[in-house]
Amino acid sequence: MKSRVLSGMQPSGRLHLGNLSGALSNWTKLQETYEGYFFVADWHALSTNYSETTQIKTLTREMVIDWLSAGLDPNKATIFIQSDLPDHAVLHVLLSMITPIPWLERIPTYKEQQEQLEDRDLSTYGFLGYPILQTADVLIYNADFVPVGIDQAPHVELTRAIARRFNSLYKPVFKEPQTLLTEAPKLPGTDGRKMSKSYNNAIYLSDSEKTLREKLRTMVTDPARKRRTDPGDPNICPVFDLHKVYSSTPVIEQVNCECRTAKIGCIDCKQFLAETLVTQLNPVWEKGCAIRKSPAMVDDVVQEGAKRARMTANTTMQKVCKAIGI
Amino acid sequence: MKSRVLSGMQPSGRLHLGNLSGALSNWTKLQETYEGYFFVADWHALSTNYSETTQIKTLTREMVIDWLSAGLDPNKATIFIQSDLPDHAVLHVLLSMITPIPWLERIPTYKEQQEQLEDRDLSTYGFLGYPILQTADVLIYNADFVPVGIDQAPHVELTRAIARRFNSLYKPVFKEPQTLLTEAPKLPGTDGRKMSKSYNNAIYLSDSEKTLREKLRTMVTDPARKRRTDPGDPNICPVFDLHKVYSSTPVIEQVNCECRTAKIGCIDCKQFLAETLVTQLNPVWEKGCAIRKSPAMVDDVVQEGAKRARMTANTTMQKVCKAIGI
Repeated sequence: MKSRVLSGMQPSGRLHLGNLSGALSNWTKLQETYEGYFFVADWHALSTNYSETTQIKTLTREMVIDWLSAGLDPNKATIFIQSDLPDHAVLHVLLSMITPIPWLERIPTYKEQQEQLEDRDLSTYGFLGYPILQTADVLIYNADFVPVGIDQAPHVELTRAIARRFNSLYKPVFKEPQTLLTEAPKLPGTDGRKMSKSYNNAIYLSDSEKTLREKLRTMVTDPARKRRTDPGDPNICPVFDLHKVYSSTPVIEQVNCECRTAKIGCIDCKQFLAETLVTQLNPVWEKGCAIRKSPAMVDDVVQEGAKRARMTANTTMQKVCKAIGI
Repeated sequence: MKSRVLSGMQPSGRLHLGNLSGALSNWTKLQETYEGYFFVADWHALSTNYSETTQIKTLTREMVIDWLSAGLDPNKATIFIQSDLPDHAVLHVLLSMITPIPWLERIPTYKEQQEQLEDRDLSTYGFLGYPILQTADVLIYNADFVPVGIDQAPHVELTRAIARRFNSLYKPVFKEPQTLLTEAPKLPGTDGRKMSKSYNNAIYLSDSEKTLREKLRTMVTDPARKRRTDPGDPNICPVFDLHKVYSSTPVIEQVNCECRTAKIGCIDCKQFLAETLVTQLNPVWEKGCAIRKSPAMVDDVVQEGAKRARMTANTTMQKVCKAIGI
């Protein structure tokens, strides 16, 4: 029996290279050795975006297309949409009864996000409780591992604590899932800051080759290298950061050396990067094209995924209800 | 089209005369003129009793039997169990996203119950949020009226506020339900305090005639009336309070007069009350007996009720999801 791994993503926008090199490449690796459950967390999107929801359905669908384009395989992994599984909400209600509020208030992201997203009113009950909804997402499939970034590790700790509390109050139903830390490489956007939808500096999986090349062309480089003849410093160049993630070792070494000696200019360097990225993204683009030509395939994937997920979820919920006695 | 009325009861114990004269008689009247939705709120029972759940399933079933015995009619009203309707939990999640925590903290019963039930840890997320679950219970059926006692009126206010917020954030989906204040008569238990399961002073619908007579025999009366020959004061006699609720006007007048003149003793007075109660409870007992002889009938009632409730709930949830865009 393979161990089970579960992870979700909020449909908050199209996926970019940062998502690909972080969670998504990790998932496509994990699906080979684990039993993977990957879902679009559309209810979670409401926790911070409840007043701006018109795009959720479109973004949910586009997210599945991006996943499939990037190599997530419905024959290997179970791919589904959270809102297709009402049992997540039922388990959320049941777990909410046994979860002390201080456990939620203590999670670092709670205050942090409230401060960062100061344009929104996040004093809502749902925003406080979304780690319980995450807990339900994980426990309902009795996942062994949850791949997360370091900032989400306290959420998995909460999941473990709630699982223990349930098991000791009622009967041992839940596994305590382990954190599987995802190492996300430092990935700058076109302006040198961290690549992020909200900075408007991202290169999207769904960008065309033309757009990709254009975005690279205008990307910032070592600001001290003003003229073609100035030697550059790759250590402070965001383009070099992308080379380190995507290019082959010989190219990285060549760029590193020839930038410092002004043998190549920034235009040459970006050209190398463009070739690398186009080569790597070509299969993603081709797959995306094929999927868009047969849109029913996306429906099939999420319907089949929901069906499989439902079987596992139902089994857990029967145990849960029996243990509580409802 | 009849207006719709919705109400629920937590399965926290067998029903007693206090419940009958309060909510339950009211429901049996309401079912005649309204489209009634009445449900056992088994998830709600967890909000205060999450650590003591072994009896919930039994109590849920017994509650339905008590309801039917007391005259709730499945041909007139929709009778169901909350946990049979996962959509309540889904709507709860969705409404939780738009409900500010201060709205919940402001509800008077929140602090009151925490203080009263000091033997339990009620600092849980579920206890804070149970008025949102109630809101989901009501709004999912678009009820016009919610019959409640005065202490629950702020909960209906919250329901109206959440409905308004949803309608203005998304689309107008929900009616704002009206409060239908239930006037519960003052009903003392056998020790003179308010009749309540927790005081161990209650007369239950399921008590036998023998138990009923025995409980009345030992019930406290006017404490100043020490001897049979002392005149009594019905105004301070709990037995007289029961007469006022259950006896006919001539009996009430007779008891009032003949107690004050010591023409009758407490034993006589209780005898009158016993006859009245036995007469009134006889049909309840007979019906209870009949139901217990065909237990499948209870299953049929709640299954049929869940089926009807599900149709209404599904229709609302389709509108809700469309309005939000998920």
